[in-house]
Amino acid sequence: MNKVRLGPCITFFPQPTTLISSVDATGAVNIMTASWAGLVSKTPPSIGISLHHKRKSYENIRHSGEFVVNMVPATLAVEADYCGVRSGYDVDKLAISGLTTGSADIVFAPLLNESPLNLECRLTLEVPLGDYRLLIAEILEVHIDAAAQRQDGGLDATVFNPLVYLGGLREYWSLGEKKGQAYKDGLALEPQK
Amino acid sequence: MNKVRLGPCITFFPQPTTLISSVDATGAVNIMTASWAGLVSKTPPSIGISLHHKRKSYENIRHSGEFVVNMVPATLAVEADYCGVRSGYDVDKLAISGLTTGSADIVFAPLLNESPLNLECRLTLEVPLGDYRLLIAEILEVHIDAAAQRQDGGLDATVFNPLVYLGGLREYWSLGEKKGQAYKDGLALEPQK
Repeated sequence: MNKVRLGPCITFFPQPTTLISSVDATGAVNIMTASWAGLVSKTPPSIGISLHHKRKSYENIRHSGEFVVNMVPATLAVEADYCGVRSGYDVDKLAISGLTTGSADIVFAPLLNESPLNLECRLTLEVPLGDYRLLIAEILEVHIDAAAQRQDGGLDATVFNPLVYLGGLREYWSLGEKKGQAYKDGLALEPQK
Repeated sequence: MNKVRLGPCITFFPQPTTLISSVDATGAVNIMTASWAGLVSKTPPSIGISLHHKRKSYENIRHSGEFVVNMVPATLAVEADYCGVRSGYDVDKLAISGLTTGSADIVFAPLLNESPLNLECRLTLEVPLGDYRLLIAEILEVHIDAAAQRQDGGLDATVFNPLVYLGGLREYWSLGEKKGQAYKDGLALEPQK
């Protein structure tokens, strides 16, 4: 294929869409859309999120040391987009989006009821990266939609129905179809002995 | 929806699928599948990847201070899976997968020809996280498939055709359909003044 150079930039990249819930010193809840979010370790289970240092959520997380990562399903693209465009310093995003929250088990930050996957997280490390802050957190508890549990013990991806964010393109996409099984399909390439 | 607790774990999470190319002290190329990869800053453009400290790619990157992140298209699920299952210490994954490489502009690690998106990266920071190492790198150059460039100056997601990895489920999925435009659709929720 013919390639072209774009220079050093943040262009197309497939990312998850999440809503981060956090509380401020008065206990008020804020939710913020984050697509710079991903798993970083199994020992212990940890996630990293990166956000601009002027976000209300950054202030909340620095103060409380806690947050919840709520995975956004494809049905909530409009709500998630709104919570990324506006700041918690200016508006009550929960009230305007109509999203609702319930208590977590361990952290004070709440679970988003409409999300099929909630990760309760405790901040363990902050890495300054220019105007951004990469926050590494331990995953303390995981809540999933019970409907995703299959009879065979596995999980059904279509119940989570994750909204994929294409950074650079600023587009939200749904999942299409299963293309393969990891740690299995690749073994077909193994040379015959 | 009814929620169930899974305890602290690495379960379902939507992630990109990438192949990381790197070179060792002899100049030999290794490629390794990584789904713990994501953008972390715009100032400067930076990406983070996390990998187990016993991987050949970790040794290569520590030695050279460089790597290339190659986005995996949905058509290469089998090849990408193979490159995640086997170690560069044991096999020549390029030879067995049939994937090919070409020279990068700035770094010694090569670009994967079959990938529609290549990010040339220079290591800037290493964060130890248990058995894993989170490697933060500056994006020095970006190469994309010219066919993705639209007449209006935008980029066509269907040309990239990214393979999404569902961690925890160990499943590879394609993208489905566009569900929305970011920084735009959410404004419909703005209260009328």
